[in-house]
Amino acid sequence: MDELQGISWHDGRVRILDQTRLPEELVALEISDYQGIIRAITGMNVRGAPAIGIAAAYGIVLAVWSLEEADRPAFLQRVNQASEALARSRPTARNLFWALERMRAALMKLLSRPLREIKLALLEEAQRLHADDIERCRAIGRFGAALLPQTTSIMTHCNAGAFATGGFGTALGVIRTAVSQGKKVQVYACETRPLLQGSRITAWELAEEEIPVTVLCDSMAAYAMARGLVQMVIVGADRIARNGDAANKIGTYGLAILARHHRIPFYVAAPLSTFDLEIRSGDHITIEQRAAAEVELCGGMRAVPEGVPVLNPSFDVTPAKLIDAFITEKGIIRPPFEESLTSLQVKA
Amino acid sequence: MDELQGISWHDGRVRILDQTRLPEELVALEISDYQGIIRAITGMNVRGAPAIGIAAAYGIVLAVWSLEEADRPAFLQRVNQASEALARSRPTARNLFWALERMRAALMKLLSRPLREIKLALLEEAQRLHADDIERCRAIGRFGAALLPQTTSIMTHCNAGAFATGGFGTALGVIRTAVSQGKKVQVYACETRPLLQGSRITAWELAEEEIPVTVLCDSMAAYAMARGLVQMVIVGADRIARNGDAANKIGTYGLAILARHHRIPFYVAAPLSTFDLEIRSGDHITIEQRAAAEVELCGGMRAVPEGVPVLNPSFDVTPAKLIDAFITEKGIIRPPFEESLTSLQVKA
Repeated sequence: MDELQGISWHDGRVRILDQTRLPEELVALEISDYQGIIRAITGMNVRGAPAIGIAAAYGIVLAVWSLEEADRPAFLQRVNQASEALARSRPTARNLFWALERMRAALMKLLSRPLREIKLALLEEAQRLHADDIERCRAIGRFGAALLPQTTSIMTHCNAGAFATGGFGTALGVIRTAVSQGKKVQVYACETRPLLQGSRITAWELAEEEIPVTVLCDSMAAYAMARGLVQMVIVGADRIARNGDAANKIGTYGLAILARHHRIPFYVAAPLSTFDLEIRSGDHITIEQRAAAEVELCGGMRAVPEGVPVLNPSFDVTPAKLIDAFITEKGIIRPPFEESLTSLQVKA
Repeated sequence: MDELQGISWHDGRVRILDQTRLPEELVALEISDYQGIIRAITGMNVRGAPAIGIAAAYGIVLAVWSLEEADRPAFLQRVNQASEALARSRPTARNLFWALERMRAALMKLLSRPLREIKLALLEEAQRLHADDIERCRAIGRFGAALLPQTTSIMTHCNAGAFATGGFGTALGVIRTAVSQGKKVQVYACETRPLLQGSRITAWELAEEEIPVTVLCDSMAAYAMARGLVQMVIVGADRIARNGDAANKIGTYGLAILARHHRIPFYVAAPLSTFDLEIRSGDHITIEQRAAAEVELCGGMRAVPEGVPVLNPSFDVTPAKLIDAFITEKGIIRPPFEESLTSLQVKA
């Protein structure tokens, strides 16, 4: 199976599938400077924590790609400037910071080389990071698929699929793998207001591969669970604290409460690059608040009367106690999370 | 304060505020036959259980209003036909059936009178039922307001306001009354996908009266509760079984689970005409499944890819054990509900 990829490098440019246009149009943005990458991240043309990390890594490459032989201080200044600006694009996804740190570490080893070599080495590092992410997703898929019975139905929220990652996906990677093993999976995709990544992207992606998917409004999740339609919930994550508290798309926390109430297992699928062992708990995760217009408008139609304020947190934090397990590229992590995570990360 | 009224009688016609057009436009439908009432109920131009009941009562009046002196069998047949068709318009709201039964009971007492008198008496009955509903809402408001502290914040779902009833509202009637008593109330209105009655109608109605209201997507309710923004939840209902299981707009059941998880009181405000003591539990409530297009489209934009199925239950059932109390026109009903309800209904 070919990878569905949302990000690719083409001769000095980064091509990013514009996720805001799905499912109506499959169109790509051609980006030739790091500011364009920042705009694509901020505008959610590219979204999903691992995908944001990969885009940022290519952003560093773009920042230096067009530089002519310059003095080293100017070069370093340029990288710092790009790195800081990219880090400010969105605050929550751990993978963004992780990718920028990895690019910086690579650069530090290259400093004595000629500029041309550094550029190529940085590109290789970004491409390696990208390829690694796909491998991680495939490993997540294998470990996760083992949790699924021969026939099952899975609810997911937002999109933790091919475009949210380097390709293949985390939560959807688990589903893809299980289906490729001959398991029968019915997916229930919550639409995920305000930006509808569930109906627009998850449903599209699964339908393309003929994996059965039914869309529901976020408010219908409890109904579906009470009717016995859902056997497990699998979602992705944007940042996971040392104790296992996990930030993911707004609505995830509510789903976890509903799953617990109905005694349905709740799994979070994420690569280790999403884990932030520096922070003790979810209290230390910055939650991005996005523009009111995303809630005020529904498909371009104004739903909220003028002058009425709205809430628009882009993420919420699901406390570790509501999570049955993490599905990572190193295996299934069960409580106590802190212990398991600390030992795993050392080996990662 | 003048009543905000969604339904009124004008000289042989029923004027219904078109709730599908809010908040953009405040326009009314002029309806002169009972089939028009059915279309308005089915199309949700008029919605909200008590309002549907009132509209149906006027529908019976319209069914006979234009009849010339006819033989009594033809007249009765016409009423039966209209009543049965109106009863088929939507299946869940108890008040629809309750209102049709009340109109039938009134008719039975009038049968020996001249046709002209019967027509006027049926109109009076519909208008009495309408006026009664407003009085019930006001009583609900008084009993409910007593539950609110001097300063509070209340989450509500869908619209249980003036247009959902004869005027004044149930859940919003409680809030209106509390505000008129000088209490400070901040309302959090869940937008209520798929048709956005929360953002379109509840927010509009409260903003018109300068009651502070903030809109959030349904998926943000758990976040708002975890942040301590919500001190109680008050919603309306469409049908309540003898054991206290309550059907209301899809999403209500999930909110009740979230409220319980966060130890936030969950109240249902409804007139006794919403209670159906004939049914033992919520298992016997028919849940209307509505057209897929409501979920597929978001503000007119197609969000769900072609060919992907959707769920679209219009209601869910909140089990009695998640409801702290019912706020009715006869007072606050606390568990055990069955006992309290049986004795109350006898006196109603």
